[in-house]
Amino acid sequence: MTCMHTIRRKFFLIGVTLIIFLVLLKVMKSISDPRTFGPAAVMSDLMSASLGQDTVSSITEHHHSFGPLRRPNVTCEGAELAKQFAPEDKLDDIIERRTHEFNQHQLRMKTNEEIIIATANSPLQYPTSFTVAPLQKSLIPGLALQTQGRCETTIKREAYKVSLSVKSGVLSVEKVLDGQQVDGRGQSELNISSSSLAQLNDLLSRVTYTSTIYRVKAEDLVHFSYDDHKAIFPLMIRRPSVPVLLDPGKDINSQVTIITKTFLRYKELNTLIQSIRKFYPNIKIIVADDSLKPEHVSGNNIEHYIMPPAQGWFAGRNLALSQLTTKYFLWVDDDFLFLKETRIESFVEIMEAVPELDVLGGDVSDDQFHFTLEYDEGDEEGGCLKRIKGGFHQRLSGYDRCVLVDGVINYFLARTEAIRRIGFDPLLKRVGHTEFFIDALGKLLVASCKGLSIGHQTHRAQTEYDSYRTQGKLEEKRKLAHHFFKNYLNYIKY
Amino acid sequence: MTCMHTIRRKFFLIGVTLIIFLVLLKVMKSISDPRTFGPAAVMSDLMSASLGQDTVSSITEHHHSFGPLRRPNVTCEGAELAKQFAPEDKLDDIIERRTHEFNQHQLRMKTNEEIIIATANSPLQYPTSFTVAPLQKSLIPGLALQTQGRCETTIKREAYKVSLSVKSGVLSVEKVLDGQQVDGRGQSELNISSSSLAQLNDLLSRVTYTSTIYRVKAEDLVHFSYDDHKAIFPLMIRRPSVPVLLDPGKDINSQVTIITKTFLRYKELNTLIQSIRKFYPNIKIIVADDSLKPEHVSGNNIEHYIMPPAQGWFAGRNLALSQLTTKYFLWVDDDFLFLKETRIESFVEIMEAVPELDVLGGDVSDDQFHFTLEYDEGDEEGGCLKRIKGGFHQRLSGYDRCVLVDGVINYFLARTEAIRRIGFDPLLKRVGHTEFFIDALGKLLVASCKGLSIGHQTHRAQTEYDSYRTQGKLEEKRKLAHHFFKNYLNYIKY
Repeated sequence: MTCMHTIRRKFFLIGVTLIIFLVLLKVMKSISDPRTFGPAAVMSDLMSASLGQDTVSSITEHHHSFGPLRRPNVTCEGAELAKQFAPEDKLDDIIERRTHEFNQHQLRMKTNEEIIIATANSPLQYPTSFTVAPLQKSLIPGLALQTQGRCETTIKREAYKVSLSVKSGVLSVEKVLDGQQVDGRGQSELNISSSSLAQLNDLLSRVTYTSTIYRVKAEDLVHFSYDDHKAIFPLMIRRPSVPVLLDPGKDINSQVTIITKTFLRYKELNTLIQSIRKFYPNIKIIVADDSLKPEHVSGNNIEHYIMPPAQGWFAGRNLALSQLTTKYFLWVDDDFLFLKETRIESFVEIMEAVPELDVLGGDVSDDQFHFTLEYDEGDEEGGCLKRIKGGFHQRLSGYDRCVLVDGVINYFLARTEAIRRIGFDPLLKRVGHTEFFIDALGKLLVASCKGLSIGHQTHRAQTEYDSYRTQGKLEEKRKLAHHFFKNYLNYIKY
Repeated sequence: MTCMHTIRRKFFLIGVTLIIFLVLLKVMKSISDPRTFGPAAVMSDLMSASLGQDTVSSITEHHHSFGPLRRPNVTCEGAELAKQFAPEDKLDDIIERRTHEFNQHQLRMKTNEEIIIATANSPLQYPTSFTVAPLQKSLIPGLALQTQGRCETTIKREAYKVSLSVKSGVLSVEKVLDGQQVDGRGQSELNISSSSLAQLNDLLSRVTYTSTIYRVKAEDLVHFSYDDHKAIFPLMIRRPSVPVLLDPGKDINSQVTIITKTFLRYKELNTLIQSIRKFYPNIKIIVADDSLKPEHVSGNNIEHYIMPPAQGWFAGRNLALSQLTTKYFLWVDDDFLFLKETRIESFVEIMEAVPELDVLGGDVSDDQFHFTLEYDEGDEEGGCLKRIKGGFHQRLSGYDRCVLVDGVINYFLARTEAIRRIGFDPLLKRVGHTEFFIDALGKLLVASCKGLSIGHQTHRAQTEYDSYRTQGKLEEKRKLAHHFFKNYLNYIKY
C-alpha cells in the first residue's frame, strides 16, 4: 500500500539518477571544430529505466532544442562577403592563422557552454557552484548525504560510503580523528566511509579543496557520488584582484577631460578650442595630432601630442584615450563647436545615476545618429554582422529621452576605464566609426539621449585633407580583409 | 516493512527540503557595508525537523566557515598606512568619494558571492546554471518533476502543480494546447498544472525565459517549486561579443613590436636602437618621448611620438602601448642593450605554447627580478598589499626555467590585447613599476624565465635626468594617497 519496492521503481530510480548531464570542455573537440557554440549538453546515454520512460524520453527529445530558440536569422545573404576582399594568393595561410588565433582565444576565454542538470531524488546535497583562490585550501560548503526518509533505506546500511573526485586540485578532510575512514586525503579522489550517517555528514562538512595548478582564472569539476547516485558541480578558481578606481574629484574639471584628434585642420581645431573655453575655461583638453607639419597648439590646460605624420585616425583616438587621468572623457571631433546649450554636466548626471552605463551619446547639430548591430556567430567560416541604422534595444529606464543601443555618433561621454578595455584599433587609418562599437559589442553598455547637443562647424573644402579622408579601393579591400581576420567575420553589412 | 509514513519522517522531509540556501544579492546591505566579501551563504532558519537534526545542525554549525580557510594573514601591521599620506583636511571627502566609487565598482562588477545549495531528495530537476541573450526568448533546459518512486506518491495525485518565478524577465510555455493548464504566460510567475505527470513534464520541457531589461551582463534567479520543495538556479544574461584577434603574420617582425619610453636620454636611446638593428634590422620600434626639448629620432620603421614635456613615465608607457598593431610587444627601457644572446623568438615560442600566459619576463644583465603580491581585501577601511621580492607561485609546467609570479623586471614580452585591458596609469609621473602589476593582479598570468637576457648600458650620471627621477617627499605622499583611493588600500608594503 505504501511504496513498493518493485523492480520497475528500482529501475526507474537508477535510470533517473544516472542522468548525468556533465560534459567537460573537450579541448580536442574544440580544436577540430572551433565553433562549438550554443549550449549543447551532451548526455551519457544511460536511459535504462522502463517506468517513467515517457518522462525520460521527453527530456532526451528536447535536448536538441536546449538554448535560445532559433535566433531571428541575421540576414547574411546580400551582405558583403569579407573573404572576397582578402588577397587570393594568401587566403589559405590567412584562414589557417585565423583559426589558430581563434582557438587560442577560446582557450583563453575558457567559455564553457555545457549545462549541468541537478538530478531529482538524489540523496546528495552539494553547492551548485563555488569559488576558490588558486593554490589555497578552501572548505567546500554544503556537502551532505541525506538518505533518511528515502524508500530504500529500511535496509539498514552497514556503512555509508561517498566518493569525491576532482581534476585540477586535491581534496582532503580537516581534523580527521583516529578510526575515521577517510581515504585519499591530499589526492584527487577522496573516499569517506562511516557506519554512522551523522558522522559521515560531519566529515563531509569538513571536506577541503586545494587547486594545484596556479592560474588567475580556471575551473575544476567536482564529481560527488554515493552508490549509483552522482552529482557534479563546478569550482571556479579565481585570483582576487585589487580595485582600480578613478577619483572624480569635486567638479566637472576633475570628472571629465575633452579629447580629440586632429589632422591638417588647425583652423577648425582652434575654433573648437575657443568655443570650449567660452563655457569651460579650465577643463583639460587632450589633442592627438598627426598633421604632416605639426604646429604649436597653445592654451591653458591643453595637452598636445605629436604623432608620426598621417599615422592614422584610430591610432590618434587610442593615443588620446591612453593619456586620460579622469573618470570620464568627452569625445569630440576637431570640427565640432560648443554652443550655449552644450552641457557636459548633463552627461555626467546620467552616467552617475546609471553606473552600468559605459557610453552616452548626444547629437551633433540635431543629428542623433545611433545604431544597433545584429551579430550571428555563424560557423567555422566566420560570423555575420549587420548594422541597423537608427536601431535601438529599449528605452533607458527612468530616462524617456534615452535609448539603449550598440553605437552612437562621435559625440559622447564615456567611462575611461571601460573604453580603455576595448581601445581604438590603430590599424584603422583613414576611416572608422562603427568598428569601435563592433569590438565593444557585448562588453559595453551604450545609450543615446536627446538633448545633449553640440554644434558642427561649416565644412570647409580642403583638397589635401579630403584626399586623405577618402578611402581608395585598395584601402577598402584591406579594411575588409582586416575585419575578416580580426573579428572572425564572414559577412559585414553596414 | 517498507518505508513508513511516520510523522517524524514527514517532518524530516519538510525540514530537509525547506533548507533554502538562497540569498539574493541585497543592494541595500552592500551599500551600507561595501566589504561583504567572502562566501557568506545566508540561511533561512527553517530547521524544524527532529529527525536528522544532527545532520541539519552540523550544516548550520559549519556555515560560518564556508569559503577559504582563514587565509594566511597578510601582515598588515608594520606596512605603510596609506591614509597617513592623504592630505588631512581633505580626508573625509576623499573617503566619502572612495566609498561611493567602490560601490559603483561593485555594482558594475556584479560580484555575486552567494552560494546556492542543491537540496537532496527533491523531486525537482533543473539546470544549475544557464546562459541566455538579453531580450531573447530561450528554452530553459532540463526542467522536470520526478515524483515517481518517492515514498509519498502512493497517494495518487489529482493534479500535479509546479510554479516558476523570475525577477528580471518573463516566463512562458511554447505550444500550449487547448485544455492545458498554464497560468501566467508572459509574466514573471508561471504555474503549470496537469493530472498527468507525463503531460506536466512535457509542458515543463517547453518553458521559455525572456529577459526584459536590456543589459550586456546581468543575472536573474529562477525559483522552481512543487509543494514544499523549492529549487533555485541562476540565469546568466550575456550579450554575445565579437572576437578581436590580432594577426601574428609569418615572422618575428609581424609578431612583435619593441616599445620604449625616453626622457632626456637620446644618447642611450640611440645606442639601444643601434643594438636592436644589429640583430633585428626590420622590427618596428615605438618610442614615446617627453623630453624637454624633443630631438628627431631617425631610422627605418621607428615611430616617434612627442609628448608634452615631462608628461610622465607611465603616461609614456601607456602611449606606446596604445599604438601597437602586433599581437605581442617587447618592453625595453631606453638604456638597455641588445646582446648576441638577446633572442625575441625565445619569448614568442613560450607564449605561443602557453596561450594562457599574458606577460613573460626575462633578465637584465642577469638580474631576473620578479615578485609576488600578497593581497587581503581587508574591510571598509581598505585592503592590504605586500610585495614579496623574489617570490613565485609555482614552476611553469613543462618549463623548468620558468616560474609563475605576479610581477617581473622591465624587460618582458606581453600580449598586446591583455596589457591594454589593464593599461599603465598616466598619473604615475616619476616612478612606477610594481603599480602596473598591482592593477593587473588577478587579471594577468605572469611568468619569469631564466635565459631570456638583455644587457644594460653603463649608467651615466646626468643631473637633469636624475633630478626628475628622484621622488621628493611631496611626490611620495601624493603617490601613496593615489593608491589609497585608486586601489582601495589601507596598507602597502613594497
